[in-house]
Amino acid sequence: MAGNTFGEVFKITTCGESHGGAIAVIVDGCPANLMLKESDIQHELDRRKPGQSHITTPRDEKDTIHILSGVFNNHTTGTPILLIAYNTDAKPQDYEHLKNVYRPSHADFTYQMKYGIRDYRGSARASARETLVRVASGAIAKKYLKEHLGVEIISHVESIGNIKTNIDIKDLSIDEVESDIVRCGDKETSMQMVNLIKHMQNTGNSVGGVIRCVIRGVPVGLGEPVFDKLHADLGKAMLSINAVKGFEIGSGFMGTTMDGVHHNDELYVDKNTQKVATKTNHSGGVVGGISNGEDIYFRVAFKPVSTIGTLQQTIDINNQDVTIECNGRHDACVLPRAVPIVDAMSAIVIMDHHLRHKIYQ
Amino acid sequence: MAGNTFGEVFKITTCGESHGGAIAVIVDGCPANLMLKESDIQHELDRRKPGQSHITTPRDEKDTIHILSGVFNNHTTGTPILLIAYNTDAKPQDYEHLKNVYRPSHADFTYQMKYGIRDYRGSARASARETLVRVASGAIAKKYLKEHLGVEIISHVESIGNIKTNIDIKDLSIDEVESDIVRCGDKETSMQMVNLIKHMQNTGNSVGGVIRCVIRGVPVGLGEPVFDKLHADLGKAMLSINAVKGFEIGSGFMGTTMDGVHHNDELYVDKNTQKVATKTNHSGGVVGGISNGEDIYFRVAFKPVSTIGTLQQTIDINNQDVTIECNGRHDACVLPRAVPIVDAMSAIVIMDHHLRHKIYQ
Amino acid sequence: MAGNTFGEVFKITTCGESHGGAIAVIVDGCPANLMLKESDIQHELDRRKPGQSHITTPRDEKDTIHILSGVFNNHTTGTPILLIAYNTDAKPQDYEHLKNVYRPSHADFTYQMKYGIRDYRGSARASARETLVRVASGAIAKKYLKEHLGVEIISHVESIGNIKTNIDIKDLSIDEVESDIVRCGDKETSMQMVNLIKHMQNTGNSVGGVIRCVIRGVPVGLGEPVFDKLHADLGKAMLSINAVKGFEIGSGFMGTTMDGVHHNDELYVDKNTQKVATKTNHSGGVVGGISNGEDIYFRVAFKPVSTIGTLQQTIDINNQDVTIECNGRHDACVLPRAVPIVDAMSAIVIMDHHLRHKIYQ
Amino acid sequence: MAGNTFGEVFKITTCGESHGGAIAVIVDGCPANLMLKESDIQHELDRRKPGQSHITTPRDEKDTIHILSGVFNNHTTGTPILLIAYNTDAKPQDYEHLKNVYRPSHADFTYQMKYGIRDYRGSARASARETLVRVASGAIAKKYLKEHLGVEIISHVESIGNIKTNIDIKDLSIDEVESDIVRCGDKETSMQMVNLIKHMQNTGNSVGGVIRCVIRGVPVGLGEPVFDKLHADLGKAMLSINAVKGFEIGSGFMGTTMDGVHHNDELYVDKNTQKVATKTNHSGGVVGGISNGEDIYFRVAFKPVSTIGTLQQTIDINNQDVTIECNGRHDACVLPRAVPIVDAMSAIVIMDHHLRHKIYQ
Repeated sequence: MAGNTFGEVFKITTCGESHGGAIAVIVDGCPANLMLKESDIQHELDRRKPGQSHITTPRDEKDTIHILSGVFNNHTTGTPILLIAYNTDAKPQDYEHLKNVYRPSHADFTYQMKYGIRDYRGSARASARETLVRVASGAIAKKYLKEHLGVEIISHVESIGNIKTNIDIKDLSIDEVESDIVRCGDKETSMQMVNLIKHMQNTGNSVGGVIRCVIRGVPVGLGEPVFDKLHADLGKAMLSINAVKGFEIGSGFMGTTMDGVHHNDELYVDKNTQKVATKTNHSGGVVGGISNGEDIYFRVAFKPVSTIGTLQQTIDINNQDVTIECNGRHDACVLPRAVPIVDAMSAIVIMDHHLRHKIYQ
Repeated sequence: MAGNTFGEVFKITTCGESHGGAIAVIVDGCPANLMLKESDIQHELDRRKPGQSHITTPRDEKDTIHILSGVFNNHTTGTPILLIAYNTDAKPQDYEHLKNVYRPSHADFTYQMKYGIRDYRGSARASARETLVRVASGAIAKKYLKEHLGVEIISHVESIGNIKTNIDIKDLSIDEVESDIVRCGDKETSMQMVNLIKHMQNTGNSVGGVIRCVIRGVPVGLGEPVFDKLHADLGKAMLSINAVKGFEIGSGFMGTTMDGVHHNDELYVDKNTQKVATKTNHSGGVVGGISNGEDIYFRVAFKPVSTIGTLQQTIDINNQDVTIECNGRHDACVLPRAVPIVDAMSAIVIMDHHLRHKIYQ
Repeated sequence: MAGNTFGEVFKITTCGESHGGAIAVIVDGCPANLMLKESDIQHELDRRKPGQSHITTPRDEKDTIHILSGVFNNHTTGTPILLIAYNTDAKPQDYEHLKNVYRPSHADFTYQMKYGIRDYRGSARASARETLVRVASGAIAKKYLKEHLGVEIISHVESIGNIKTNIDIKDLSIDEVESDIVRCGDKETSMQMVNLIKHMQNTGNSVGGVIRCVIRGVPVGLGEPVFDKLHADLGKAMLSINAVKGFEIGSGFMGTTMDGVHHNDELYVDKNTQKVATKTNHSGGVVGGISNGEDIYFRVAFKPVSTIGTLQQTIDINNQDVTIECNGRHDACVLPRAVPIVDAMSAIVIMDHHLRHKIYQ
Repeated sequence: MAGNTFGEVFKITTCGESHGGAIAVIVDGCPANLMLKESDIQHELDRRKPGQSHITTPRDEKDTIHILSGVFNNHTTGTPILLIAYNTDAKPQDYEHLKNVYRPSHADFTYQMKYGIRDYRGSARASARETLVRVASGAIAKKYLKEHLGVEIISHVESIGNIKTNIDIKDLSIDEVESDIVRCGDKETSMQMVNLIKHMQNTGNSVGGVIRCVIRGVPVGLGEPVFDKLHADLGKAMLSINAVKGFEIGSGFMGTTMDGVHHNDELYVDKNTQKVATKTNHSGGVVGGISNGEDIYFRVAFKPVSTIGTLQQTIDINNQDVTIECNGRHDACVLPRAVPIVDAMSAIVIMDHHLRHKIYQ
């Protein structure tokens, strides 16, 4: 009800504020006998952590993950897994100036109205720090999917502001993404993106962009046909990430300009694999809400972050006009660090639907 | 788990196949003492029903709704409401030719793989006929929201194929939409849309488009801040509608090209109403997952429908190559009839979050 | 939230009032490819229906069940199944005298307080008529469990008032139960029970009793170890039946007087079957919340029904003292007709946990 | 699905093994602005903790609770609350002898069969140590209910083995219970109970008993009328506690021997309070699944604990016959320490239904 749980079978319940004691998650419904060590998770967290390069926030959190339950002798036991990362570099005093003011386009105002109280330290629960444990949970799902089904999930930054790569996600490898601090995977475009981000950093401004994701190797049959369509759950997962304003699968908005004759993906049997395949993939790997075995690919739109170092008009908690200039430690562009978050939420959705589908087998 | 339920408090569970006995829904969680008659619901169904104009499918279903429980003396009693529409113009024989073949980009193949069995009559559960009871349930939510909160929901067709209106949804009235058979609301553009749809009908082809929706009068505070963000639930609701491939709220994908300075919506107090407002509304009425009192507006992308009267390559259930040309009674463009579906799903999401929010009050 | 849904995977959502249009249920999550005809369900309903013998209510409902979705060519398709029974012998005028009065120990008062409105015709939603569709849903579960797992569920009336049988449920057959109008299965005791029930009928009084249930053939491993223990879900299922005030599994309340040395069920390997078994079965087939392969058996306590033909003191809706004597068509003892309800709810719980357990396999 | 979550609105998700890193819970859905300090919770935990008297297990856990999220400046913020107690006195080496053997009537066998893996240290997740965070969560619910609704919850030990008190729970005070190490509240009977427990300790045996609970001051209207009846949820809550085998509300099993004329609770208006009341309370405060404003009272049956220091026959993981004598640190009788667990689960159910009922208001 209060919306801190995601998933039906592979179910994560998260908690924690940016400057409270810890960020944590209980992962319930993970199958038993998966080999799991903290280092399996830490690897993914390091991709998300602050301070990883000169284009991300300088906040210096180690984001060290601890497994406190559900794992015995390095194997999951089928019982709930508690993952926790203690907050060590919290500087609540940096946020005293936000105590009485609502930042524009920020959750300050809506939280205050909803709850009648607000933890004003560093965005608290509305901080992107909450996504830390999404990534941690996703690491478990990703490991399981890879080992059991051979599923591969790759996200990358397609555009930042108006700078956009034209590379085909079909051929993109995880190494290409990870060797690039922007996580675009196209070196030339990436350089332009870095310059844009630095410009935004220097001018107290921010910028958004688009992340694309491809999921390869998903078996046919995942997804429920009516409300819990596979892409509806992927869409919800993405839209639940901070700063996301849009989601499209397959042909998406562009597909609305095509006609049916050209949009339809004709079926055939692949001579080599003897598997049913489609000649085109405008559907993005999901038909009627159910995976059809083709690559699942989609786009996620991130708006520019709202906390910026430029003077803005706003109001305080007494509804008086004030100006504000934010000086906390924030990213001018979240996309490079958001790539593992998109990966993680994708993994969680696919994992959940994989387990849901077991009921039919 | 099987995904035929939507909502947490105002919860709908739907059932029914296109050519089975009936399409029905149990609406659970509707507050008691709402005045409710069948005619309140029928009105919305008539906006969705087939055969309403020369640009929609000629299937002749009356779509008469019956209330079989939960209402006493024309008032809801707090118990679950059963709404049912019997299928009267079912022509299953029209679909015998689909028994052994998978239509391209259609749920035939994925259903067969998922369940090992498939009701091949008229798309069965994958038929858009399933949305009939979404509209019926939405009619209840809409009535409640209007009477109790003054909420107004208006959707319209913004584009079909490459034909797009430039009217501002901010000023759009329900009458402008309903007086137009395309439900665009812009007479000039609408004529072009009609021509395009007829062209598609005549050539055995189909076309997609974009529906925009605005929700006015939503109180501040609806939505849960982490996974069940208001726009994440709206996104899921829309993506669960047949043929939808994309969703964006507020500035959406366009917003990814803006910088933070221009994207941020500055807060002020409206001198007349003394209410907190924002100067711009790039957020689309939702900040941090919670409504901020501004208009909620979003776009929904519909691909062209897959069942077309053009010869296509595909395979049969024995994986043999075959060609197919569909001759059932289908829309060449679903958008005019999809407008009330977008309305309905919006109403259900807002209603559900309104009731969820009561817990905090 | 409003509590009209039961189960997590095999999920039933019920609706309908005693004197409204119909009693119905949507059964979601039933696996595909189960052979299913209306007659499979009708058989169980006939065991529950009113007017089946001279010791039950004379209300003459045929309780004819209709399958309106989810079944194609006599097989389930994996889509939700709508089961509906129209109310045909409703006599709402019989209940006008209850419009303004609260019957003692009846839901009249609590419904009115909860909802501010009340359908006063024949107890409406609080009527035991609501259990009709529990039995119908349970018939599907029972059929599946029998065919796929060989599970057998037998309930019988152990006691009515102070009259109690001493037969061992371990040896009881369904034929013994069904050949007895009281559904006790012990002919001698049964005759005394019939006399007691008739005495209650004749004196405008009512009487309660205990139903025992045994479930044979449940595989090892069903049930979730913490909150959704198998017996906790069985307990909830039983306590949700009208008039039930108690539940005990295995040794139950009697077991509280035993010591651990005698209560513990020692494990051994059965020489014939090579299966792990226990020498005693004080646990009632569930250990740590999980089935251990032994017979599951439990008891359910039914209070005497509250609607009686004897003059009682009570108040009306204006809080004024009044007397009331009820003359609707009611059972003096619900137990014979409650046996199939206990069966059905047992089947639903076991079916649900069977499907839940598939996730681990 | 995996059953580690309880509640719909006030929702707890627990994790942790007896000898793992910690026992923890995320409490989601707690209203904002409740004053809350760790000491508010610690007080209830101390009632449950081991080593509190000479009749409980000597395991020396401080059970210190930490609040790591959801509370700001000693007030809840509406975000999820993480409560954690680190395991400090874990002695896993005490359990090496259990690695390859299944204790009779213990979850060893069923866990191994369900998951194919088992953490054999001190019963792990099946340990009553899991209830620590039930008590912690219940402390929050209890505080809220007391402050906002004036609800009072008192449980006590009614019987241990065959020793039973006759005191009336109606008049029982929390002080009487807490001043008695058995938590019976009847000094004379309590002394006999202590002797019985000590005898069991000395002879390597164990004993069960019955806990009664009364909940005073519950407003009219809580509970949902069909599956989520208030007493059905109370029953499930109790049956989910380790070692519980039975539950009865109001007249319970005894009520099955009464007739309707005497069992019915006649309604009247209390002259002093002007509130509707009942002359008797055989219903136990719940009618039609909904609270009627009278005291809610029920009984919970605890079997003798299965881990005993007496030689027993059993089998090992290779299905070979072995004998076992358990020498871990266990209670010979769990009832004195189970009283706060019954309190806590009661509080969680009432709190959850209080919040659920807000939707109707």
